Amino acid sequence: MAVAVSPLAPKTYPDLPPVDGVRFATGAAGIRYQGRTDVLLALFDKGTEVAGVFTRSKCPSAPVDWCKTKLEGGKARALVVNSGNANAFTGKLGAEAVKTTASLAAKALDVPQSEIFLASTGVIGEPLDASKFEGVLEPLRDAASPDGALDAARAIMTTDTYPKVAVARTEIDGVPIVITGIAKGAGMIAPDMATMLSFIFTDAPIDAPVLQSLLTRGVQGSFNSITVDSDTSTSDTLLLFATGAAAHRGAPRIKTKGDRKLKPFRKALDALLLDLAHQVVKDGEGARKFVEIVVEGAASPGAARKIARSIADSPLVKTAIAGEDANWGRIVMAVGKAGEKAERDKLAIWFGDIRVAYKGMRDPAYDEAAVSRLMQADKIDIRVDLGLGEGSARLWTCDLTKAYVEINGDYRS
Amino acid sequence: MAVAVSPLAPKTYPDLPPVDGVRFATGAAGIRYQGRTDVLLALFDKGTEVAGVFTRSKCPSAPVDWCKTKLEGGKARALVVNSGNANAFTGKLGAEAVKTTASLAAKALDVPQSEIFLASTGVIGEPLDASKFEGVLEPLRDAASPDGALDAARAIMTTDTYPKVAVARTEIDGVPIVITGIAKGAGMIAPDMATMLSFIFTDAPIDAPVLQSLLTRGVQGSFNSITVDSDTSTSDTLLLFATGAAAHRGAPRIKTKGDRKLKPFRKALDALLLDLAHQVVKDGEGARKFVEIVVEGAASPGAARKIARSIADSPLVKTAIAGEDANWGRIVMAVGKAGEKAERDKLAIWFGDIRVAYKGMRDPAYDEAAVSRLMQADKIDIRVDLGLGEGSARLWTCDLTKAYVEINGDYRS
Repeated sequence: MAVAVSPLAPKTYPDLPPVDGVRFATGAAGIRYQGRTDVLLALFDKGTEVAGVFTRSKCPSAPVDWCKTKLEGGKARALVVNSGNANAFTGKLGAEAVKTTASLAAKALDVPQSEIFLASTGVIGEPLDASKFEGVLEPLRDAASPDGALDAARAIMTTDTYPKVAVARTEIDGVPIVITGIAKGAGMIAPDMATMLSFIFTDAPIDAPVLQSLLTRGVQGSFNSITVDSDTSTSDTLLLFATGAAAHRGAPRIKTKGDRKLKPFRKALDALLLDLAHQVVKDGEGARKFVEIVVEGAASPGAARKIARSIADSPLVKTAIAGEDANWGRIVMAVGKAGEKAERDKLAIWFGDIRVAYKGMRDPAYDEAAVSRLMQADKIDIRVDLGLGEGSARLWTCDLTKAYVEINGDYRS
Repeated sequence: MAVAVSPLAPKTYPDLPPVDGVRFATGAAGIRYQGRTDVLLALFDKGTEVAGVFTRSKCPSAPVDWCKTKLEGGKARALVVNSGNANAFTGKLGAEAVKTTASLAAKALDVPQSEIFLASTGVIGEPLDASKFEGVLEPLRDAASPDGALDAARAIMTTDTYPKVAVARTEIDGVPIVITGIAKGAGMIAPDMATMLSFIFTDAPIDAPVLQSLLTRGVQGSFNSITVDSDTSTSDTLLLFATGAAAHRGAPRIKTKGDRKLKPFRKALDALLLDLAHQVVKDGEGARKFVEIVVEGAASPGAARKIARSIADSPLVKTAIAGEDANWGRIVMAVGKAGEKAERDKLAIWFGDIRVAYKGMRDPAYDEAAVSRLMQADKIDIRVDLGLGEGSARLWTCDLTKAYVEINGDYRS
């Protein structure tokens, strides 16, 4: 089935500058199909620090288990990613495949196994034949180049209709720093996090525990605030690699998370995470609309988040948006089913700037034609004020179209 | 948009016998469209006891608020149901519309307002013009007949493709008792409960508190164990009316819920509730497959229920079933995202009799062709054994098809 590029795809890709200390190469290992690019190798200079966040699924993939353990060391020399097979729910065979891959990589790259990170995406439950990596990594090692980030983003795509890349430039103590990131993910996207792989690279000299704190905080308002279909993958992996190469140009090493010199970096990282997270939603399977949901006036931030999630995940809300139907009654339904405090007679709802419901009933000034025009845009803004307290939350989602069902339904019959 | 009758619809309807003490009439009040049957009136003889369960939405409709209050008296003389407008999220106007309707009904039927029950289904957020009931109820009162149950079921349909009716015959202390029930609901169906109206009628002489206990227990394994799209309506209403007329034929009055003479009645009621609940799922918007999900071996019954719900609500599981794709990896995903205890290496999954996954990986004997044949049936059975404890749960759902998106997407653009 040919799938057209999402109409919400970015019109242009940014030039991805090299990150000092990072090199990429991609190749074909024949994981699922012959002759298709399905392996990404990223090499890091000695001294690279690493942080990561992972799926909260109770059935994580074998590579997720592997990365969690290796993260304890805080050091990274290589990242090996394959598409075509998620190596998830593959039991002992999966754990063995991961060990084999790491062992082959350690030998080919001459780095310790404990500093090799692995990620896999693709079919769940099929054993991954790790022997296919044999002889594949050596030529990749030799071909690795600082300029391969866009190719890297392409190599990890599955049902994605476009590669997801982002770049941010910042400084630490006046020394220029670059951050680049790639991501994949289109379906099975929900907090926390998504069928989502994302890898961020920077030359900033930041110790692993500080990196971890930046990342854990940064994903809250970005990757953990998006949902495509409420389904959570077994494989979600987000890794942040910091080579520290900017130290050669005078950047001081950051060793504590309270260091004031971190401020611009944190801001730049947060913006880059949000950029990538939005790109994932905009490539949501079958998506035609990018939807921002803001909930305000809730009893608590947690209540606001739960209500926003209830709206964002509601099939009835999402199909209405697909149909460009300003069906705010379904928003009321979704608020009501969230199980959090809500008083019908205090609730107000906006589509864009237009208030459609107020004090428990239709806004007297509500003009359906005006809202209908607004619903034709690519970006839909929904705002709900519960009128109860100070809790607020912001989430992003997409519409639910027939194409989603088509992409995921297979329709073999 | 013309919608064909669900392929899962029952091939025949049972003959609905009269229930002594109950009469029905249907008519057109022009609530949303002119000339369409949109009002159901049910009349009950004096002494009829009533019990009810309702949506747990935090934004319930005005008729739900009304019924909850009136239920305290435990007595019913009339039920007025309209389709075309849900009178939900209509604030003060909604409460006034309910009062106006009850007042018109009390006058037309010469019964106390406190013994009149109301339900509405249709569009949310539009004010209901209750003056449309004026002059409508008197002719219905005069026309009411004991034989109108099937017409009653038809009158309350919205996006339903077939009327839902059920009948059960039982006895209390050797005296024959009849129970009949009608239901509507097709989308916005999820525990607890559904965009669902259901009314059950019996001639059994059972006191209201006992009826309430029977109903509250009975919905757990039936109406509260179904989901179409995880969306919960603001209007869900299930009322059980017991006229007590069988007392004239010698049935003893049941005054305590522990009364042993209740046993056959409870069993018959539970079966009827399950029958109606299944009919609702089988008419799920766009449904082509009826799916039973059994979760066993969970750490607790609550955990089993949450995992079953996670599977039943997963768009990726539901689209796979629509595509007749035995994609058990998505079942693993749904188990993993439920947030309950699950050990990958103890998990086993069956489609029908075929075990597809065992001990953390694909069953060695798994034959995809055999499972694919099985997926072509109308009824799909999924069983998951977590291998952890004794907790089990059983839920019913349907597949997610393009027709669901079409029905709910409106596609006005």
